[in-house]
Amino acid sequence: MDPVKIIARKRDGLELTRDEIQSFVTGVTRNSWPDYQIAALLMAIRLAGMTSRETVDLTMAMAASGDLLDLSQITGVKVDKHSTGGVGDTTTLILAPLVAACGAKVAKMSGRGLGHTGGTLDKLESIPGFSVSLTREAFIRQVNDISVAVIGQTADLAPADKVLYALRDVTATVDSLPLIVSSILSKKIAAGCDAVVLDVKTGSGAIIPTLEGSIELARTMVEIGCKTGRRFSALVTDMDQPLGNYIGNALEFEEAVRVLRGEVTGPLRDVSMELGAQMLLSAGIASDAEDGKNRLESALASGQGLEKLRAMIAAQSGDPRVVDDLSLLPQAPGRESVRAARSGYLCGMRTGDIGNAARLLGAGRIHKEDAIDPSVGLIMRARIGDYVEAGQELCVLHTSPASDVAGARALLDGAFSFSDTAADPPKLIHAIIEAER
Amino acid sequence: MDPVKIIARKRDGLELTRDEIQSFVTGVTRNSWPDYQIAALLMAIRLAGMTSRETVDLTMAMAASGDLLDLSQITGVKVDKHSTGGVGDTTTLILAPLVAACGAKVAKMSGRGLGHTGGTLDKLESIPGFSVSLTREAFIRQVNDISVAVIGQTADLAPADKVLYALRDVTATVDSLPLIVSSILSKKIAAGCDAVVLDVKTGSGAIIPTLEGSIELARTMVEIGCKTGRRFSALVTDMDQPLGNYIGNALEFEEAVRVLRGEVTGPLRDVSMELGAQMLLSAGIASDAEDGKNRLESALASGQGLEKLRAMIAAQSGDPRVVDDLSLLPQAPGRESVRAARSGYLCGMRTGDIGNAARLLGAGRIHKEDAIDPSVGLIMRARIGDYVEAGQELCVLHTSPASDVAGARALLDGAFSFSDTAADPPKLIHAIIEAER
Repeated sequence: MDPVKIIARKRDGLELTRDEIQSFVTGVTRNSWPDYQIAALLMAIRLAGMTSRETVDLTMAMAASGDLLDLSQITGVKVDKHSTGGVGDTTTLILAPLVAACGAKVAKMSGRGLGHTGGTLDKLESIPGFSVSLTREAFIRQVNDISVAVIGQTADLAPADKVLYALRDVTATVDSLPLIVSSILSKKIAAGCDAVVLDVKTGSGAIIPTLEGSIELARTMVEIGCKTGRRFSALVTDMDQPLGNYIGNALEFEEAVRVLRGEVTGPLRDVSMELGAQMLLSAGIASDAEDGKNRLESALASGQGLEKLRAMIAAQSGDPRVVDDLSLLPQAPGRESVRAARSGYLCGMRTGDIGNAARLLGAGRIHKEDAIDPSVGLIMRARIGDYVEAGQELCVLHTSPASDVAGARALLDGAFSFSDTAADPPKLIHAIIEAER
Repeated sequence: MDPVKIIARKRDGLELTRDEIQSFVTGVTRNSWPDYQIAALLMAIRLAGMTSRETVDLTMAMAASGDLLDLSQITGVKVDKHSTGGVGDTTTLILAPLVAACGAKVAKMSGRGLGHTGGTLDKLESIPGFSVSLTREAFIRQVNDISVAVIGQTADLAPADKVLYALRDVTATVDSLPLIVSSILSKKIAAGCDAVVLDVKTGSGAIIPTLEGSIELARTMVEIGCKTGRRFSALVTDMDQPLGNYIGNALEFEEAVRVLRGEVTGPLRDVSMELGAQMLLSAGIASDAEDGKNRLESALASGQGLEKLRAMIAAQSGDPRVVDDLSLLPQAPGRESVRAARSGYLCGMRTGDIGNAARLLGAGRIHKEDAIDPSVGLIMRARIGDYVEAGQELCVLHTSPASDVAGARALLDGAFSFSDTAADPPKLIHAIIEAER
């Protein structure tokens, strides 16, 4: 099929056929469409949009552009979760063991990604000895044995997405609903899940800052996801400030353990419970969200969640004693306080800048090949709505000699807004969009 | 400047600043903008459009992307013409000498171009000995001496346009008004003209087939052109059938000579007179279009136009005797008739297909490096509105052994429409848009 004709049809606002979309994705995957034609079609899609039918076809074609993982040897419903990305967002480390402890199967293949901190893989690798490299057979065996495994990508999942993602970034076509949706869903579908709960972040640290846009994204993903024959549901949750208080790799693992121990409550725990309830609902284990939350609370209170985490660490060659002795995790040598310049009610945060400060300390990557330091990061000491006195600690930096402390401080200095009048904490859960039945 | 930010602003429908447009054109010219970013911006421009101010800035930046010809050593107003391209459109060969004979200066630098037949250069090169390669000094000297010269491009005119034109062709962004306008005008401005008359074709053989679209293009070009400080005017003329009856390189030169001799009348002569009148008006020689036409008629009747053509041919090393003995032109060895399959009123032509038939005979190029045969082509024997009997000759093919006669016949078989009721010949001049004063 002639690429120019396909581009022209989308340019004219027409609906592309399944064959045309397949021809495009094949061209992207086999490198037979040159970058400039891909870029022109991406811009046409960004401006002319795509119907729900087109987005489903694009998603499925992208999912099929590489390996389609077959997890049929795992008995039971495989549930997965996906977050659109935020700061201090360590729900996966809490939910993978906790949901598994409640009877669901969590067979999770994670990417490394770029960002403020490393991805789930990097956080797990801060555990001494932990391996994220399992063969596919070992992966499936582990999930059948202990219900949970989180490993790095061994398969070539949705290679078309890699090409499109890189091009979108440099052609101002990132913020296109059908392109975002197909990018996220195609990878989840290729990874072989049965049911996925999406955590769509909204606010100053999110991919889509506006609530309206975030809800539209969540609704569209659930609609398109369910049309592919999997169960998808979504939460829209706050990212106007970091979700947890710990930002970094070992630090986020530590906070996840503290949640599972029952030591940490608050937004991170609350969002985890809501997400987990949807996961149990999707897996057919919970009868409704309330029942799901009750099951999660029991597993947490009984220590079964923590026990599942120990088992997963042991199965993946890590030292399970970290769960009971957090001092075994990598420790950053330096500590520095960031203090409030004035008194007042903390009324806003530039969450993205806080994340970038952690990255400057060494917790995240800009380029794929960048090394990260598992020990560094920062711990937040105040949340929106708190009254703070001038000179009071806002956060504590965990630094290494390689950290760009000055750069981090410069970002943090502008990251907090104060008001003389009381400020409300942001709403945590903005919307729950359940799977179509 | 960050290309992504510029692309994003146009994507969002905003007006780009002059600096942003300059940054884009510089990036295109120096190859520092990758093709995919150029393609994304082209599609954004195609869909979001450009204001008149943006189009002026784009035109001027493209004109300045290479050499800007300085014709100030030529005394008097340098007038030029430009056709958006059609079949049997040989007005330049008539007008260059005729307008020069009326006192205007015609310093024309032509490209070769791709198309049904060669460009003006190819038509001139069918004259034995004729050279289109003059140094810039010789070019200027010739125009000062005899008022007219038509040569090939010696300068690097608007190189940014070459890159954009090639990319537009493969990204479905050809039919964008600001991109068409800036492409045409930038080359004319770089070529150093003072005044340009545009011949915007409309109909089945034109770049824009609809009359409405053609008039909009003409109006926009005149508006933008005048804003660059030159005098631009435009005619919108019919291309629902070939303008002249001769299609080919030597054949079109022959028809031009026959017009200048007074032997050929009809649409080709009529459109030439209207275009020439506007050229004399723009040059400040004619007081109005009527006066311009009278001057052209006198120069034609007195043989001064023909004499100027002889002088130009002699000055450019050609054999001026061709003007008086057309048999000195290259002659195709073969003749074949294409005859009407039925009787009726000729009511429509697929003009583009007729042009392509001439190309298949060897008169035009698909690729830059293709050779053309100056002798081949075809002569039309019927025009829209004529009543023809079944078996009557519709056109005569002038062929060589290398001609794809079968291919040409296949195109021509479908190129003529007949009706049982009388059909009107198409209107010739649809609009005249004079320069703003």
